[in-house]
Amino acid sequence: MSATLAADALLARRQQAGEQVLPLTSGEIGLPVLPALRERLAAAADLGAYGPVAGSTALRTAAAGYWGRRGRATDPDLVVAGPGSKSLLYALLLAIGGDVVIPVPGWVSYAAHARLAGVRPITVPTAPGEGGVPDPDRLREAVTLARAAGHDPRAVVVTVPDNPTGTVAGPGTLRRFAAAVRDLDLIVVSDEIYGDLVYDAARPAVSPAVLAPERTVVTTGLTKSLALGGWRTGVARLPDSPAGRELTTRLISVASQIWSSPPAPVQAAAAYAFDEPPQVTARIAHSRALHEVVVRAVAARFAATGAELTPIRATCYLYPDFAPLRERLERRHGVGDGDALTRLLLDRYGVGVLPGSAFGEPAGSLRIRVATSRLYGDTAERRERALTASDPLRLPWVRASLDRIEEVLTQVTAPPG
Amino acid sequence: MSATLAADALLARRQQAGEQVLPLTSGEIGLPVLPALRERLAAAADLGAYGPVAGSTALRTAAAGYWGRRGRATDPDLVVAGPGSKSLLYALLLAIGGDVVIPVPGWVSYAAHARLAGVRPITVPTAPGEGGVPDPDRLREAVTLARAAGHDPRAVVVTVPDNPTGTVAGPGTLRRFAAAVRDLDLIVVSDEIYGDLVYDAARPAVSPAVLAPERTVVTTGLTKSLALGGWRTGVARLPDSPAGRELTTRLISVASQIWSSPPAPVQAAAAYAFDEPPQVTARIAHSRALHEVVVRAVAARFAATGAELTPIRATCYLYPDFAPLRERLERRHGVGDGDALTRLLLDRYGVGVLPGSAFGEPAGSLRIRVATSRLYGDTAERRERALTASDPLRLPWVRASLDRIEEVLTQVTAPPG
Repeated sequence: MSATLAADALLARRQQAGEQVLPLTSGEIGLPVLPALRERLAAAADLGAYGPVAGSTALRTAAAGYWGRRGRATDPDLVVAGPGSKSLLYALLLAIGGDVVIPVPGWVSYAAHARLAGVRPITVPTAPGEGGVPDPDRLREAVTLARAAGHDPRAVVVTVPDNPTGTVAGPGTLRRFAAAVRDLDLIVVSDEIYGDLVYDAARPAVSPAVLAPERTVVTTGLTKSLALGGWRTGVARLPDSPAGRELTTRLISVASQIWSSPPAPVQAAAAYAFDEPPQVTARIAHSRALHEVVVRAVAARFAATGAELTPIRATCYLYPDFAPLRERLERRHGVGDGDALTRLLLDRYGVGVLPGSAFGEPAGSLRIRVATSRLYGDTAERRERALTASDPLRLPWVRASLDRIEEVLTQVTAPPG
Repeated sequence: MSATLAADALLARRQQAGEQVLPLTSGEIGLPVLPALRERLAAAADLGAYGPVAGSTALRTAAAGYWGRRGRATDPDLVVAGPGSKSLLYALLLAIGGDVVIPVPGWVSYAAHARLAGVRPITVPTAPGEGGVPDPDRLREAVTLARAAGHDPRAVVVTVPDNPTGTVAGPGTLRRFAAAVRDLDLIVVSDEIYGDLVYDAARPAVSPAVLAPERTVVTTGLTKSLALGGWRTGVARLPDSPAGRELTTRLISVASQIWSSPPAPVQAAAAYAFDEPPQVTARIAHSRALHEVVVRAVAARFAATGAELTPIRATCYLYPDFAPLRERLERRHGVGDGDALTRLLLDRYGVGVLPGSAFGEPAGSLRIRVATSRLYGDTAERRERALTASDPLRLPWVRASLDRIEEVLTQVTAPPG
């Protein structure tokens, strides 16, 4: 079971049982659906037919335009839509075949996808502040070793910007990474679902599709930028190369057997979103600004405890490392790793987070992932207000959550005395 | 690539190029979306959140009621919804593990699912007129042999009513089948997507879930009964047994990694449909009547050529066997199997059908599958009129298609002269 969805279900049950909980588990954005998108979906409710496996021409053309406006000209015939980028990431593993390299820490589903697809996940650590991209030198070592051992790594997954760390791998790392994948002849699967949630417009994420265009598949969707996880629409951009066209055919073939086509009414609304009319762009800008201010406020509270924290540049996540407080946590709470810390936070304080182990961290790691998007409010009206507030931190419910986080962290990390 | 979707895409391209085509390939129903369902979807357009992996409580409760009204009391906690029953069938193979027995002829995707899931498909023929259910004696033989050879069959897929044959396995066959799967300790995956499309209400399909309730998983959806393929919603009913509950957990776990949840707005409309208010029931009854009258008219034209045809009791398919005309087809057209016959029909006459090989028929078989739902009209207005016509066969466009079928078949099967 997806660790995020499982933790979320557990928290929901405790909340329904009347407990006070602070849900920092799931990265579900939870903001209201933009009215213009609601209208497009409603207007498309008469679409009952499957349509093309790869998605409608309108949706594929809109997605191609989306990438084109980001400096990557895209042939709509090399776009494949699916019921979420999660489904596409899974289907890509089946279509590519062989084993797959995944970053550690990395999103909970990459390793699970590999296991379900019957391929071997080869884990490679990322460097601090360069989350989501396997360290290029260690990637070379790991792939060389794996091949020497008779394994068959053909792809490497990256997350730019990164979940769980909220960092964005820099151009230097990506250039070294691109050289490595070229030397190693690996296909890059670049999960860019957080691509529009980089706070500083002057320093956007660099896609491997720019540096290794002949071998990079990009996936994205509307789950994060427009809070449309429940609509289940993602898109993949395949490389414009003979190998890329062949992979497109194989991906469509897998898609035809697993999901037939993305939901048709949703495709119509998604096409509108990927066209990026001004109100869509404005909504994403407001969401991004909200994420930034709340993540930074929460991060400041974690940093104040003495936990290590790399500066966050995107998403609504932070990934503190409590290693500097190891002795104290061990002595006061018998907590020796992220799993135990997660249990302590949940059982004693009703605070839900995810342990680093869910992201592949080794035993003994004291990292946890904290998602802040559920702090915007527990009703649609409050979330709407958070989105439009000039200073969301002054909203009483946001304030109360921040105070509660501070209080819990102070209690958990207080020196023995 | 799914043979149906591939053939459909090919026909669509020829049609766009201005060719006159007669599409008898796809079983996509193509009838308009019921207005009440359109309204429900539109009203649910504000649902942007994932919701539970297994589907909303409303949808699972409605599906449980749907089965309950058919004599099978169902616990909503044993219902899992997904983006189409195709996705559920695939995920079930992953959740069950081991190898899988599939019927021959059988739906194009079962064998493909097995291959994608990395499990061995073990094919077992069905008896004439008992389509979709592997012949019980041959099932016993095949599973015993497979186990002796070190394979691990754990599940068997059945289709009741059947695609491609349009037949419905009788109670006698199903009783012997139930005894066999119990002796062999197999899980039954019963694909009942055509369950509401049995023409004779006095002789409904018997589900294996009635005869082997402890080990039968049932899947269905709205794709066929309400022509909602493009909405992508299916439901699975798991057995109410310890093993069934364990399998439910595993299925939800697989679902959480492959698709997260079914599309939320569609779930709301699907819940309404599975509740079966009178207008939904009436729409399904009208569709069923339309299927019956058109299938029978087409079947009569095939039967008139001398092709063998089992009486059709459900769906919008017929599955004629041209074996009695083998010599004639060989001599006049050099056609020796269903693939060649399919190519002849497409290339010379623009008539699209599927060869029996797509359904697992052995080399040399002269069977083809003919789907008749595309004959209702090539515009929404015509299809709407077909649905409400007192005698659809008198509509000029239906008449013209029937005449064209007769003309083509006469030319193809005329004795040499």
